[in-house]
Amino acid sequence: MLRMAQPIIHHRTAEFREIFKRASENLQYLFQTEQPVLTLTSSGTGAMEAALVNTLSAGDEIIHVNGGKFGERWGNIATAYGVTAHPLAIDWGGAPSVDDALAMLDRHPGAKAFCLTHSETSTGSYTDVRAMAAALRERFDGLIIVDGITAVGAHEMRFDEWGIDIAVTGSQKGLMIPPGLAFIALSERAWKAAETSTLPKFYYNLKKAKKSIATADTPWTPAVTLVIGLDQALEMLRVEGIENVWARHDRLGSSLRAAVRALGLTLFADPPSNAVTSINLPERGDEFYALLKKKYSITAAAGQDHVKGKIFRVSHLGYYDEADMLAVIYAIESALTDVGHPHEQGAGLAAALAVFSGTENPVEVK
Amino acid sequence: MLRMAQPIIHHRTAEFREIFKRASENLQYLFQTEQPVLTLTSSGTGAMEAALVNTLSAGDEIIHVNGGKFGERWGNIATAYGVTAHPLAIDWGGAPSVDDALAMLDRHPGAKAFCLTHSETSTGSYTDVRAMAAALRERFDGLIIVDGITAVGAHEMRFDEWGIDIAVTGSQKGLMIPPGLAFIALSERAWKAAETSTLPKFYYNLKKAKKSIATADTPWTPAVTLVIGLDQALEMLRVEGIENVWARHDRLGSSLRAAVRALGLTLFADPPSNAVTSINLPERGDEFYALLKKKYSITAAAGQDHVKGKIFRVSHLGYYDEADMLAVIYAIESALTDVGHPHEQGAGLAAALAVFSGTENPVEVK
Repeated sequence: MLRMAQPIIHHRTAEFREIFKRASENLQYLFQTEQPVLTLTSSGTGAMEAALVNTLSAGDEIIHVNGGKFGERWGNIATAYGVTAHPLAIDWGGAPSVDDALAMLDRHPGAKAFCLTHSETSTGSYTDVRAMAAALRERFDGLIIVDGITAVGAHEMRFDEWGIDIAVTGSQKGLMIPPGLAFIALSERAWKAAETSTLPKFYYNLKKAKKSIATADTPWTPAVTLVIGLDQALEMLRVEGIENVWARHDRLGSSLRAAVRALGLTLFADPPSNAVTSINLPERGDEFYALLKKKYSITAAAGQDHVKGKIFRVSHLGYYDEADMLAVIYAIESALTDVGHPHEQGAGLAAALAVFSGTENPVEVK
Repeated sequence: MLRMAQPIIHHRTAEFREIFKRASENLQYLFQTEQPVLTLTSSGTGAMEAALVNTLSAGDEIIHVNGGKFGERWGNIATAYGVTAHPLAIDWGGAPSVDDALAMLDRHPGAKAFCLTHSETSTGSYTDVRAMAAALRERFDGLIIVDGITAVGAHEMRFDEWGIDIAVTGSQKGLMIPPGLAFIALSERAWKAAETSTLPKFYYNLKKAKKSIATADTPWTPAVTLVIGLDQALEMLRVEGIENVWARHDRLGSSLRAAVRALGLTLFADPPSNAVTSINLPERGDEFYALLKKKYSITAAAGQDHVKGKIFRVSHLGYYDEADMLAVIYAIESALTDVGHPHEQGAGLAAALAVFSGTENPVEVK
């Protein structure tokens, strides 16, 4: 990523347009869509806001799955704009069932959008967006909106084929570049909704962004150096092949989950995300977590809100490969030994290796 | 700026908080304010939007100076949110007079905000914000809002002392780092207005950002690598001393203006900005401009809208020093020679050197 440190090129030059054009095309490959994927200089939250303010009007209703901090956020954004949010509340760590989702549609027939979280970072749980979108579409004419912030680039997502109406993601997750960019795609149905949406917007006016992208431009000055990094990251993804990228994350997630079980720990989320694994803390959990971070220098995250002190989360998306995962598992084993958690030495590593070699949990793209 | 290419540190770490805390304090020095200066991951336009949506309500009225594309933008943002914008229209290249500004107050006594553009990038003109703020404040209880996007770090700006209520700037201008961050400060009066503002906001909710900055945090994931670059840029500014930075830009702007006049060209803007100089194109202007960019590799900008084909603009803020300015002047002289514009060879360089040596146009911080 040294290219990001080179002298800044101006965004209204042929040189930058060429980079931005290529990156935008590769974003369509990443999202598996023929629709333009718009680049915003913003965190992912801004793209979530853009999804709602460009397609809804004050007084509209939405349904959103609320099983973690990011699912909850859809509701918070809606409420801030005078849109009524009906939460489908599920236990943290779980995923919504199709039946519950359909029951919400029955209860709120006027809902204009159904908002999902593909991989809920706060809990490590995974939602089967393909199945959910297929079931919803049978009887729902509104928008199916997906927060793909930790999922895109880790889990299979086929925007066009699955009938998603809006998907958003951020730069620092599956794309492996620093934070500061967010991406959003809209289906024809969503662009049609944008025609009648009356919620106010200016910076996040996506119709302006769509018009600009036709000439490889953005309405406002973009984060140029991050776009240059994006271009490189997407080229790497393209060379690896998106199916291989998904399979790699499946393999990594499976290996960590197998290791955790072999060490006598339990998983928090079901079904689990392949981008982040949340694990229930063992006895002497605070001490274990502190060791993991300080003695073994593992970038783990604590639980938030009511799972604070109960779980820890390990993220494994982007650059991660098998060796990185073994290093993480070795650190977990070592910290468990330090706090006196009973386990067979090397059991976690052995379980992970079995996954890598295909003798356990055969890896498939779901 | 090689530090920006190093492995990404997570934003919720002690290491990042220390950097962000120091940068935020140095931003207060840059703005000359005791108020917190908030960092947004956004272009400068997003910070302009944040200024209005955090302090106004639908149906409110504002006055804004409209003498270029950026002055016009205040009106466009307001209108998008259902706020009535009264433009004080002035000729492009000019600056508003205090009398005209006061007359606008008389005509629109209900105005809640008066929006200014300190340095209008599209025309290269400068507004005396100190004088304007002093005159407005005598009879205006609303908010004095300043777009400082190309001014902060180039022109003297004393947020607290001058009684400014909101000022915004961006990362890629006076701060010399890549685009992607914007900064905003609010006075006590503006924070009070935020208490009753009902315009919708979520990503740009500044009350959230103010709460976060108290613990050196941001509500949403910031553009971490850009913050690291910001920290370095601000340290450099602090070492140079803000008064010296302003004086350097004054010296550079003065030298270019003296050179332009000595070469028989005329300036477009009056009064002129010290961040960007706009110059009326000579005969064979298209050819001259193309030579400047292609043969002499000068980063000049064309005129926009109705001054397209009439002016060219040279920006000189941030890293610029005397040698850079001489290189620009030499390029202008050479391109003039190429198109057969009559001028004394070396007259521009001589005029600039006279400014540098203090034998002409003694440099003062205004």
